[in-house]
Parts: sequence; structure tokens; C-alpha cells
Amino acid sequence: VNPLDPVRLARAYLSRVAEPPAAALSALVAAAGPVKAAELVRSGEVPSSVASQTAARRDEDRAEDDLRRIAELGGRLVIPEDDEWPRWPFTALASASRQGLRCGVEPLALWVRGAAKLSHLTERAVAVVGSRAATGYGQHVAAEFGHGLASAGVVVVSGAAYGIDGSAHRGALAAGGRTVAVLACGVDVAYPGGHEALLARIPEQGLLVSEYPPSITPARHRFLTRNRLIAALAAGTVVVEAGHRSGAKNTAATTAALGRVLMAVPGPVTSASSVGCHELLRSGEAIAVSSVAEVVESTGRIGEDLVEPGRRSRSAVGPPGGEAMRVHEALAPQSGRSPEVISVESGVPLSRVRALLPEFELAGLAERVESGWKRSHLSDGRGDA
Amino acid sequence: VNPLDPVRLARAYLSRVAEPPAAALSALVAAAGPVKAAELVRSGEVPSSVASQTAARRDEDRAEDDLRRIAELGGRLVIPEDDEWPRWPFTALASASRQGLRCGVEPLALWVRGAAKLSHLTERAVAVVGSRAATGYGQHVAAEFGHGLASAGVVVVSGAAYGIDGSAHRGALAAGGRTVAVLACGVDVAYPGGHEALLARIPEQGLLVSEYPPSITPARHRFLTRNRLIAALAAGTVVVEAGHRSGAKNTAATTAALGRVLMAVPGPVTSASSVGCHELLRSGEAIAVSSVAEVVESTGRIGEDLVEPGRRSRSAVGPPGGEAMRVHEALAPQSGRSPEVISVESGVPLSRVRALLPEFELAGLAERVESGWKRSHLSDGRGDA
Repeated sequence: VNPLDPVRLARAYLSRVAEPPAAALSALVAAAGPVKAAELVRSGEVPSSVASQTAARRDEDRAEDDLRRIAELGGRLVIPEDDEWPRWPFTALASASRQGLRCGVEPLALWVRGAAKLSHLTERAVAVVGSRAATGYGQHVAAEFGHGLASAGVVVVSGAAYGIDGSAHRGALAAGGRTVAVLACGVDVAYPGGHEALLARIPEQGLLVSEYPPSITPARHRFLTRNRLIAALAAGTVVVEAGHRSGAKNTAATTAALGRVLMAVPGPVTSASSVGCHELLRSGEAIAVSSVAEVVESTGRIGEDLVEPGRRSRSAVGPPGGEAMRVHEALAPQSGRSPEVISVESGVPLSRVRALLPEFELAGLAERVESGWKRSHLSDGRGDA
Repeated sequence: VNPLDPVRLARAYLSRVAEPPAAALSALVAAAGPVKAAELVRSGEVPSSVASQTAARRDEDRAEDDLRRIAELGGRLVIPEDDEWPRWPFTALASASRQGLRCGVEPLALWVRGAAKLSHLTERAVAVVGSRAATGYGQHVAAEFGHGLASAGVVVVSGAAYGIDGSAHRGALAAGGRTVAVLACGVDVAYPGGHEALLARIPEQGLLVSEYPPSITPARHRFLTRNRLIAALAAGTVVVEAGHRSGAKNTAATTAALGRVLMAVPGPVTSASSVGCHELLRSGEAIAVSSVAEVVESTGRIGEDLVEPGRRSRSAVGPPGGEAMRVHEALAPQSGRSPEVISVESGVPLSRVRALLPEFELAGLAERVESGWKRSHLSDGRGDA
């Protein structure tokens, strides 16, 4: 791969020119292609919606410098045209986008550090997030979960913050496992300062990932923007501890909006640091998880655990009586049904139904229609894919 | 009230002659009336199903002695013919009975100690139960909940066991509130031994209640039988701490079977004493509660909070957009709907729907039909009741 090919240069430029998420710019790139889109942005010949996102920085073309800088760091710019682009995980963003959700904007490119392929690490990943102001209990649980998930071959995704995030990454590293930190700043920025050593270690066993080009510093809105990527790159998100106004609740909301499995760890009701988790449990938004085994159970992937490759017929949807089978049987072949109705029909919790349907879609077992979801009829050719 | 009237004597006799729950004997009493049923049992002229329940003890007629004994203790035998019989709470047992559930057997009579009227104390009651092997955390939460509920005017129902039960009773007593202990032995038996002083204090501010006549000692099966009364006498049950095999899980299952609100308190996932609570949360059987306010919110009663007395028309079902209103609007006037469908239609959690429907039934707002529940058409006369 030539790091200075025109498409990569164009995306590197676009990655800096607008503050993500920039839906209008993304639409232009989708329509015109990245090279042409970059030309149009540079020249200012763009619709006003794109102009307002790009006018301030359109003369700031640091693409070559940025690509040189990331290479010096042993990193690279991963773009949608690359094999390692996390295409499947990001279909959740596209779905959210069709629903008009702000979190539904796919990044234009991702700056990464570490040898592993991003698409490989997101095949079986779970996010573990929570408060920076974590208690000893929360840090203990986060480290145990990070360690246990990594030992089970699950990649631990988090945000490298103090508290829960850091403990989850450290647990995964201690297990010799893999972990992905998605940052709200450039992958060359040591933030938070106290995590400089941790941030240096993660690329040895996993990846640092950011939507922001090198040298970009963190800002409040960037944490919120970053959170959607944590939610999207993982099959589910575990909130270990969250106060009433914790940023982790934003990741939780995005996880639910993206149709991913949302999990929360119970804690003492006397602890302010567990209030956010208990709110998520009480409202029914999150499933309670008390162990790594329960996290794995709640986030089991169709592709790996339930559908035999090459035999994606109805009878191949997991074990008889299993959740996936029951959800698939609750789909009607002719007309769409809402996830709520499918949940009642199948007796499978709504949050699991919401997680399974997009997986069915990817596996060709279901499709989204106006009125909800219906069962797919696979062509023979696709059945062998 | 003459303590030695024939009906009371008959029920005192019947209360000792069969081991509860004795469905066949209850059916005989319902059909023949208590006096005639007692005569038939004494003479042995009963169907074989009743004979097998009563043959062993039918000659043991200690009714007068038992009534004298309970009077000496400052107590009384409460029977269905009395005004203070908890008629409304026990409709849940009748519903369970129609579904063929073993927990659905109404007691033949209740032995009580304490000045308060039983029907009065069960108007607004919540059960707080949990492990005998409670942690300091669990006992703290149970005492706080007992204190807070009692302070809010809610009667605290529990089983007087060591651990959670004892803490809940003590919390209620410390608040100067009212509490009901439902025992698995006679109300003159000091069990458990270490709770002798607590058992002596409870009748001063509330009631000791038992289905078992004086001097009956506790047995394993009696705890399970007793648990259905705890569940039935309260609008909902809070499980504070429960191990994987705790008896509190039996009360929880009965609470759900009786259509009462089941709540569980989260705790540290590192604590074996919270495993049962977390199982109930994970499965969706219980609602998470972290505070007294949440318990009150989850168990708010139609009669008091939602329906204006004397105006029980459809428009009077609580505030517009409130849970009760939404559930009532989800009922069809012509055909029955299942609680699951009503839950989806109304957007109100299934456990709340299950709690509201029997309250609607009592308020004349809904009725149970073959296929589920339908909306009732109130006669004008009933609307003024």
C-alpha cells in the first residue's frame, strides 16, 4: 500500500478539514468519491451545507505531513477503501443514519497505531466503559472483565480514560490479550497525561484508533463524538460504573441507538458511582451482567456462534430453541414486524432482538422493510457465500 | 365478636386438621360452608382428596383450646367472615388458583397478634425479604428500606428471619411505623430464638400473622407455604439480598406468579449474597430498585394514587399519559389481550402491567376473560361505589 496514493491523501485532507461528525461532507464523499470531493472542498465549490462544515479549514491541507507523521509513529491511516476497514461494525452507523440519528455518521478515515488489522480486532469485540471517578469496586470489576474477556479471545474496546477505561485496558493487557483504545484526540497526543505509559503499551498488543488527525487535542464534544465509535466497533457495551451524569451514559445511549447490546454491572445502591448503571437497569435499557460469562452470552455473534458458514438457511439459525432460532422464527416472511412484536413472539428480550436483527441482515437471514423486519428468502447463490 | 361462635370454632378446627395449602379442603369449605365442612371432616364423610388431607388429624379437635390460647396472648383468629380479612390482597391467590398454581390456595384462617386490623395494614404494604446469611451491606439496605417505607406510611411485610427480614422489621419499628411478620410457625413460638425480643415488639406496632395454629413449629415446607402469604399481602416484594439458592427466590417466584410487582436491589457483583438478585434482574423478572422512592414508584396503588374515588370511569384512570392510563387504553373493550401484548401496546413494563391488571379488576375497570384481559363497561351504579 502506497501511503501517498491519491485516495488516501484525499481522505487525510478531508479528515482534518471538517469537525466530525460531518454528515453533509460524508454525503458529498459518498456521491463524488473522496478525490473529487477533496477537490471540490478545496475549491469551495460545494453546497452550503458542506461549505459551513469545511470553509474554516479548507486551506489547511496537511495531508502529506499527517501521513508522514503517522508513519513515523509506526501507524497508518485506515480508509474505507482498505480491506481492514471495519465494514460490518459500521453498518450500524449506516442504519442509524437512515433513521436520521446524529450518531449515524461513518468516519471518513481512522488514524491507527499498532500492528493488528482493525477489521480483525473488531470481529469479536466488547466495549467496557465507565466513570473516570471510579471506585475501587468499579476498577476491580473493570480489570476482571478486561482480563476475562481478553482471555476468552474477546477484544476489549474502551476510551483510555482514567478509572474504568484504564482498568479495562490494563486487565486485557495483563491477560496477554488484545485491546483497542478509541481516542478523542490524535493518536500521538498523550491524553490523559497519567496514561502515557498505557497509551504506549496498547499498540503493542492492540490498537490506538482515532477519527482525529495527529496533534488534535481533546475537547468535550470530541468525547461524545468518539463514543459512537466505541459503541459501533463492539458487539456490545458494558457500563461498569457510571454516575448520574457520567459520560458513560452517552456511550450507553449510543449503544442502544445503534442496536448493540447494552449491559450494565450492578453495584451497591449506596454508591453514587453505580447510580447510572442502576438507572439503565431500572429502565430496561441495559441487561444486568455480573460476570464475563454473562457478557459473552449476551453478545454471542450470529456469524460465529449461531450460523454455520455456508449453510445460512432457516434451519441453520443456531441451536433449536436458542435465542437466535426463536427470533428468526418470530419473523414473518411476507410482512414486517417491529422488534417489540418480535420480542413478545419469541420471548427473547428486546435488547437481544435489537442486536440480533442487524446480524441477521448481514447474514442474509432478514431484511429491513418499511414496517419493521421480515424474514429473507436466500437465493441459492447467496446461501453458499 | 364472640370468639367461640360456631363459624370461628369450625375454622379453628379446620386450620389445624390439614397441612396448608390444602386445596381440596378449601374447595369443600367453599362449597359446604365452614361449619358443615368441619362436621363432614370430623365424621370422615368426605371425598378421598379431602380425606387424604385430613384423615391423620381429624380427631384432633383443639379449636376451643387454640382460641383460648390465642386470646391469652392478646391475639385472635381472623377468618374470611371477618371485616378485617385481607379480601383484596387475596384475590391474587384466587387468580393463581384458577391458573392451577399451587400457591393459589387462600388460607382457611389466620392467627394474629397485635391490635391493628389486618385488612387495614395490607392496604398499602410492601414486602422486604432476603437471605438469612445477609452481609452488612444487605442489612444496611434492608434497614434503610424498612425505615423509609414505614416513614412513608407503607407497611413493611417480612418473615421475621435472621438477616434481611429482621433488619427490615427493625427499620420499620425504629421509624415508629407499622410492620407485619408472617410466620411459618404458631404466633406463640419464638422462632428464630435470637428474635424473641423482636417478635415480642412487632405486635405493639403491627401484627404477627400465621396460617398455623398456636404451638406449631417451623418446618422447611412451611417456609415455602408461608412465602405465598408474604407475596400476596403486599403490593410488591423487594428482594434485598439473595444467594443463588436462597429461600427469598421462592418468595420472588411466587410474587411473580401472583402478578405482584417483583423488585430486586442490586449489589456488588463480587458478593455471593447478591447473586440471586442479579439473576432476577438479568432475566427481567424483577425491576431494579435502589431507593425507597423507587419502591414506592414501582408499587403505587391504583386505588390511592391513580383512580379518583367515586369517578371510576375510563377518563379517571390516573393522569393522562401515566402508566395506568396507558395500560387501560391498551385494553380492548371487546376481546381479551395478553399482558405481553398490553405491555407492548402501552409501553409499560410487563411487571407493571401484571400488577395493574388485578387492580383494574378490583376497581371494575377491567375483567379477565379466556384470552387475557379486556376493558370493563361499568354500570352507573358501580361507578358510584
